[in-house]
Amino acid sequence: MANDTLKKIGEVLLRAENVLLFPHTNADGDAAGSCQALALALESKGVKCRILMEDKLAANLQFLDSGLFTWDNDIFGKEFDIAIAVDSGEVSRFPKREEVFHRGRTAVCIDHHPTSKPFADYNYIDPEAAATGEIIFDLIGEMGVKVDEKIAQALFTAITTDCGNFQYSNTTKRTFEIAAALTDSGFSLSETSNAIYQNNPVERIKIETRILETMEMIAGGKVAMAYVTKDMLAETGALMEHTEGLINILRGIAGVEVAVFLKEGDEGKVKVSMRSKSYANVSELCSSHGGGGHVRASGCTLEMPMGEALSLMRKEVPGVL
Amino acid sequence: MANDTLKKIGEVLLRAENVLLFPHTNADGDAAGSCQALALALESKGVKCRILMEDKLAANLQFLDSGLFTWDNDIFGKEFDIAIAVDSGEVSRFPKREEVFHRGRTAVCIDHHPTSKPFADYNYIDPEAAATGEIIFDLIGEMGVKVDEKIAQALFTAITTDCGNFQYSNTTKRTFEIAAALTDSGFSLSETSNAIYQNNPVERIKIETRILETMEMIAGGKVAMAYVTKDMLAETGALMEHTEGLINILRGIAGVEVAVFLKEGDEGKVKVSMRSKSYANVSELCSSHGGGGHVRASGCTLEMPMGEALSLMRKEVPGVL
Repeated sequence: MANDTLKKIGEVLLRAENVLLFPHTNADGDAAGSCQALALALESKGVKCRILMEDKLAANLQFLDSGLFTWDNDIFGKEFDIAIAVDSGEVSRFPKREEVFHRGRTAVCIDHHPTSKPFADYNYIDPEAAATGEIIFDLIGEMGVKVDEKIAQALFTAITTDCGNFQYSNTTKRTFEIAAALTDSGFSLSETSNAIYQNNPVERIKIETRILETMEMIAGGKVAMAYVTKDMLAETGALMEHTEGLINILRGIAGVEVAVFLKEGDEGKVKVSMRSKSYANVSELCSSHGGGGHVRASGCTLEMPMGEALSLMRKEVPGVL
Repeated sequence: MANDTLKKIGEVLLRAENVLLFPHTNADGDAAGSCQALALALESKGVKCRILMEDKLAANLQFLDSGLFTWDNDIFGKEFDIAIAVDSGEVSRFPKREEVFHRGRTAVCIDHHPTSKPFADYNYIDPEAAATGEIIFDLIGEMGVKVDEKIAQALFTAITTDCGNFQYSNTTKRTFEIAAALTDSGFSLSETSNAIYQNNPVERIKIETRILETMEMIAGGKVAMAYVTKDMLAETGALMEHTEGLINILRGIAGVEVAVFLKEGDEGKVKVSMRSKSYANVSELCSSHGGGGHVRASGCTLEMPMGEALSLMRKEVPGVL
């Protein structure tokens, strides 16, 4: 199914009286920033917008919230003009709001994730875009809305977070061109980056420190492995979510090809994540334990105590090198 | 003194038979990348170039070395056509090579650091440029050299490292425009970023972990303080240079306004670094101890044991909030 044009989608949106936007759960910078930018643009043209959430807006993205985010499923009542899924190519990406999504008389989807099957009345899916924010930038242009400071800040947030600050391979010429255009609004790039990145919960630093104390180098330094237990979380007051990104520290060590991170789960289970840097295929080993994923990023769950899981990994991981 | 034009400087360089390039000591991504890009461009036009170093090229920049870097002061003998200081606005930035610099019949300086007094025969100093790499990009354009993959990779390294991956306030529209132009060469942005950033010495992770174990939060979490001793370096096999950047982890904690990092020095001295996030002036406190710097980044040296220095900071730093 071919995409509708952004021109057409812009026309449909501008004819609406009210539009409810649906970012995916655990909205990241791209989901939240894209929603905020599009909502601000539509509001400037007199279209009433709200961004419907089902969980908290992350602490480091709260600067985006100018009052358009809502947690009230009934904000627009039993029916409204348009429901638009943003950065969410499947309704399953907002499970607790799916029913509300269907209250929209017209459904729209704008995303950059490859999707099996466009599900909305109007769809624009571009897996070549580094971020949904890039598509929203183009859409806002088609709608004839000037990108002001607030819109630019939201779009920059969307783009910079999804392309790893212009380091990931999804970064293209277009990504830089859009970033250049956003600077015209005069938004503060350094203040925005500070808000996003200089906002680490202290619990994250504490649990990262505890986890890195467990780090061991295997196979002559080609494998870095570390783990976290529930006791370690309790000691530091951290949550499991504060360990997100830890595996990238392990993988970022010079000479390391494979990073392995083990998390103590419920009922004697251990969740294992693996990442490789440039050549090792970690997917097969994870598959052999009932898991899977990609060549460079996979995972599995082991039903054994942490000590045994660590021993098993020490024995098996060097085999993927 | 006004800048010479890049056109003029390009003409002078292209008339030379041999050119020796001088990055500053401890060459960072901008110094090393700018030198490599300019040397490659000149070599492509038949000008023999070498980049003269006085210390090792950093491990995460060694991918830049295609054979043009040299540590041989006599590589071009007692006299050569042009000596060019790159990313170095003062000859004091390459002290052990100053004598060699003066062997060049013509001196050129290209830099983006504010300088008191241009010292070369031809100078181009632009403090508005996010990186010297931006100026080199323009210079290469003036010389009519096509930016190939290798040149683009070197310039991207120069630019991305000096603007904090497009997060610092020196990042401008021009920075993004140049990055966009560099992608035309087809160089791999993700491989380059991997080489620069996924190459952390394991000793750095180990010493950072040890230092973060010492972290204490003061003034209700508005101050984060940590320290490193020589014993900690010995235990982990790390060097003091591996603690560079540690203070940014402290400053990056949510709620922290001032980060304080103490390093044990020689003869009972303690070197103190301070950074503030958005409002505190750390310069005055450092000045009161014989140091100084900027409002948001200052330092001083205390002549007392580490324990006393920590006590003093606990007492005095909350006063800057």
